[in-house]
Amino acid sequence: MPFTPEASRCVMTQIVMPTHTNGAAGVMFGGVMMQWIDVCAGVAAMRHAGGSVVTASIDRLDFLGPVHVGDVVVLSSQVNFTHKTSMEVGVRVETEDMRSRARRYTTKAYLTFVAVDGHGRPVQVPVPPLELATDEDRRRWDDALRRRGERLHAAGRTPR
Amino acid sequence: MPFTPEASRCVMTQIVMPTHTNGAAGVMFGGVMMQWIDVCAGVAAMRHAGGSVVTASIDRLDFLGPVHVGDVVVLSSQVNFTHKTSMEVGVRVETEDMRSRARRYTTKAYLTFVAVDGHGRPVQVPVPPLELATDEDRRRWDDALRRRGERLHAAGRTPR
Amino acid sequence: MPFTPEASRCVMTQIVMPTHTNGAAGVMFGGVMMQWIDVCAGVAAMRHAGGSVVTASIDRLDFLGPVHVGDVVVLSSQVNFTHKTSMEVGVRVETEDMRSRARRYTTKAYLTFVAVDGHGRPVQVPVPPLELATDEDRRRWDDALRRRGERLHAAGRTPR
Amino acid sequence: MPFTPEASRCVMTQIVMPTHTNGAAGVMFGGVMMQWIDVCAGVAAMRHAGGSVVTASIDRLDFLGPVHVGDVVVLSSQVNFTHKTSMEVGVRVETEDMRSRARRYTTKAYLTFVAVDGHGRPVQVPVPPLELATDEDRRRWDDALRRRGERLHAAGRTPR
Amino acid sequence: MPFTPEASRCVMTQIVMPTHTNGAAGVMFGGVMMQWIDVCAGVAAMRHAGGSVVTASIDRLDFLGPVHVGDVVVLSSQVNFTHKTSMEVGVRVETEDMRSRARRYTTKAYLTFVAVDGHGRPVQVPVPPLELATDEDRRRWDDALRRRGERLHAAGRTPR
Amino acid sequence: MPFTPEASRCVMTQIVMPTHTNGAAGVMFGGVMMQWIDVCAGVAAMRHAGGSVVTASIDRLDFLGPVHVGDVVVLSSQVNFTHKTSMEVGVRVETEDMRSRARRYTTKAYLTFVAVDGHGRPVQVPVPPLELATDEDRRRWDDALRRRGERLHAAGRTPR
Repeated sequence: MPFTPEASRCVMTQIVMPTHTNGAAGVMFGGVMMQWIDVCAGVAAMRHAGGSVVTASIDRLDFLGPVHVGDVVVLSSQVNFTHKTSMEVGVRVETEDMRSRARRYTTKAYLTFVAVDGHGRPVQVPVPPLELATDEDRRRWDDALRRRGERLHAAGRTPR
Repeated sequence: MPFTPEASRCVMTQIVMPTHTNGAAGVMFGGVMMQWIDVCAGVAAMRHAGGSVVTASIDRLDFLGPVHVGDVVVLSSQVNFTHKTSMEVGVRVETEDMRSRARRYTTKAYLTFVAVDGHGRPVQVPVPPLELATDEDRRRWDDALRRRGERLHAAGRTPR
Repeated sequence: MPFTPEASRCVMTQIVMPTHTNGAAGVMFGGVMMQWIDVCAGVAAMRHAGGSVVTASIDRLDFLGPVHVGDVVVLSSQVNFTHKTSMEVGVRVETEDMRSRARRYTTKAYLTFVAVDGHGRPVQVPVPPLELATDEDRRRWDDALRRRGERLHAAGRTPR
Repeated sequence: MPFTPEASRCVMTQIVMPTHTNGAAGVMFGGVMMQWIDVCAGVAAMRHAGGSVVTASIDRLDFLGPVHVGDVVVLSSQVNFTHKTSMEVGVRVETEDMRSRARRYTTKAYLTFVAVDGHGRPVQVPVPPLELATDEDRRRWDDALRRRGERLHAAGRTPR
Repeated sequence: MPFTPEASRCVMTQIVMPTHTNGAAGVMFGGVMMQWIDVCAGVAAMRHAGGSVVTASIDRLDFLGPVHVGDVVVLSSQVNFTHKTSMEVGVRVETEDMRSRARRYTTKAYLTFVAVDGHGRPVQVPVPPLELATDEDRRRWDDALRRRGERLHAAGRTPR
Repeated sequence: MPFTPEASRCVMTQIVMPTHTNGAAGVMFGGVMMQWIDVCAGVAAMRHAGGSVVTASIDRLDFLGPVHVGDVVVLSSQVNFTHKTSMEVGVRVETEDMRSRARRYTTKAYLTFVAVDGHGRPVQVPVPPLELATDEDRRRWDDALRRRGERLHAAGRTPR
C-alpha cells in the first residue's frame, strides 16, 4: 500500500438543503461548509496516518463564491505535506451544475491534523513519509512547506 | 458527455459520530444510514437525469453488518437501469479500517427515482438512455429488470 | 399481556419543518421520512420482542405522494409477521389536513427487524408468536409470508 | 366531527438517542424534551383550531424523573380549555419499559396556544367551543380555569 | 469569588437560521427557543452551584412577540433565588436590530434547577446562598419567593 | 452609537453535548466548534456593519487544547480591523471550570467578513471606520494589518 497523496484522497458529495442555509436568501451557511471540510480533510489524514487524528488548525479557508440551496457539492481532499506526526491536508470544494455537469470552484482550505492514539493523545511515532508521485504532488508539498515557513516566521519561530 | 453508469457515479464519505448512533452501545442508527443513502443515490440520479429528481421508492435495503461510532463509511452509487422518466440506483456502503485500509461491505440498497421539473412535477420527456459500457453494467441492468418484473408481478401488474 | 399486532402498534406524529425539506420548493426530504419510519417501526418491534432490536432490512418503501412543509404527518406501525427472532413491521404514513381532519395516505413501508441483546448480538430465543386476532391481522400475515417467499426465491433460496 | 378533547388528542412516540442527551451520563437533555412537547401539544391545538397556531406560553412544565438514552418515550396531548382564540393544552410524557410494557410518568406540561392565520397573525374568530364529554374532561377544564385565574391574579389582572 | 446574581450571569447569542423555523413563514419554532433557554439558564445555575445541575421545571415561559429567520437573538440569564439545593433562574430573550442596534424583548422564562453530582443524583449540601447586591437583585428574589408560594399553594402545600 | 470593537463584541455560551463530539472518547468535534465560531464572529461583524455579512475566509484557526463533553464553552468575538467593506474579526474560545470558575483558553480564530445587502450582494459603501479606543484595540489592529500584508505578499499581491 503506497503512501502517495492519491492513496489517501477522500471524496465527499452532499446536496445543500434548507437546513444548511443561514437566512432567507437560500445561501449556504459557512459554518456547515466548515464542518463538511473538517470531516473530508480528516478522513484523508486518518487514511495516511492509519489511525485517529485531531484537527490542530485551519491554516486558511477561502469562500470563493456563494453556494445555494439545491446545489450538489463535491469536496475532495488530499494530504499535501507531512512533518513528524502532523499532516497538512488541502480541500477543494466544487458545486456541480446538473444540466451541464460543469463544476464551479467555490471553496478551498488547508488544515493541519495531528495523529493521536485511541485516547486522543499525540502518538510518539511519526506518520509514514508522503510519497510524492507526480509534479502536482511536489508542487503541493513545496507550497505547504512555504506556508509553514511563513506561519512560523509570523509567530517569531524558526522552522525545525 | 456519455450516459454510462460510471459517468453519474457518486461517492460520499462520512465519519460515524455519536450523533449518528442510536443507543449506548455505539452502533449506528439505521435511520441515519438511510438518509445518507438517499442523498448519495439521489446525486447519481440527478447527474444522469440532468436535473431534479424525487425518491419514488426504496426497492430493497439490507444491513449486512453493524457500523460503529468512529467508523469511516464510504457510500458509492450508480444508475443501474432506466425506464421512461424513472431510474433504479444501486448503493454500496462499506466501512474502512484505517490501519489496513481494508473495506467491509455493510449495507446495500436499491432505490427508484423519478425526474421532476423545478416545481417537483414529473417531467414529460424520458431521461437519457443508459449506455451500458461494461459487462458489470449489463449484469446490473439485467438484475434491475428482473427485480422490476418481480415487483410488478407481486403487485398483479404486467411490465410495460 | 397479549401479543397481537394491536398490542405493539406505535403511533408517531410530526410536523414537517423547513429543516426536514430538501430544496427550495418546500417538499419533504425522503431521507428524513425514512428516519422517522425506522423509529416508528422499531418501537413496534421492540414492544413485541420485549427488548432491543436492530433493523435488518427495508423490504419495500413507497412514496405515494409528496409531503410539504407545514404538513402534520401521522405514522402508524404494527408487527405483521414473525419468524424465529425476526419480525416484519408495516408502516403507514398519512398527512392530515387541519381544516377537514381528512387524511391522505402518502408513504408505506415494510421493514424487517431482528431481536438483539443489550450488546447488539442476536438473541437465541425466538420472539413471542404473533397472535392474529382479526381478519386484517391474518391478511397482513399472509401478505408478509408471500413477500418473504418472493424475496427468498429471488435470492435463490428456499423458505425455511 | 366533534370538538371533544379526545378528537384532537395527539400521540407521539420517540426513542431517546445519544443525540438527545446532554452529557456523559446518558440522561436526556431537557431542552430536547421541551421541543418534542411543543410539537405534540401544537398538533392537538392545530386539530382543535382547524388551522395554524403559535405557542403563546409554557404555563408549567415539570420533570418528574430522569429519562435515559434507549428509553422509549410516549407523549400524549389534549386540549384542556379554550378561551376566545386561545387554548390550553396538557401533555403527559411517559417512558415505557420494553420487557413489562409498564409505563413511568416522567414529564407533564401545560402550554397555551393561539390560533393564527397563514401569515402568523392572530385570527379574529374564536376557536370552536370545547365539548366536554367525560368527567375527566370537566376536571381538566376546571383545573385549567383555576390555573388561568391564578396567573391573572399574579399578574394583577382580573379574568375576563 | 462572590455568589451574586451578576457573578453567574450567562449571555448566549444566536442567529436564527432556516433550520430553527417551523414553517413557510420564516417564524422561529418555539421548541428551539425553549432549548436555547434551557442551555442558557442551565449555565447560570451550574456557575452558582459550582457543578452539575438538572432542569426540574419551567415555572413559566412567555413568548411576547415573534422571532424571525435572520434575527440576532441575545439570551441573558441569572439566578434569582435559591432554596436548599434548588435555584430559580430567570431568562430574558431579546432580538437585536442590526441597523439601529435597538433590542426588542421577545421571550421571558423562569426555570428551576437542582444541583446534582456527577452521576445525576441530587447533592446533599445546599448550593451557596445568593448574595443580593442590588435593589434589582432583591426585587427578583422577592418575586421568585412569591411565585414559589403561589405554586405551593396551588399544589395544596405550605412553603417550607 | 460608537463604532469601537467593544460596541460590537459578541459573547456566546454553549454546553458541549454528546451530539457535538466526534467519537467514543467524548472529545468535541472540531467542525462544530468552527460552526459556533462562524456564528459568534458573524454577529460582531453584523453589528459593526449594521446589516448582513458573509464569511469571506478563515485566516487562521488554532485548536490550542481539547474540549470535552460537559464543558461549558464561552466564545467572545470583536472586530479587529476594517478595510472598505471587509472586516477582520477575532474569536477567543475558553472552557470554564464550574468549580473554580477558572477559564482555559482552547481555541482562537481570525475570520474575514464582507458586508452584503439583503440579496447577498456586496454593498458599495464601506463599513463604518473602526474607532480604536484602547491600546489593546490598537495592538489588534496592527496585528491584523500585518497578517493582511503577509497574506497579500504570499499571494504575490501588494496591499492596497
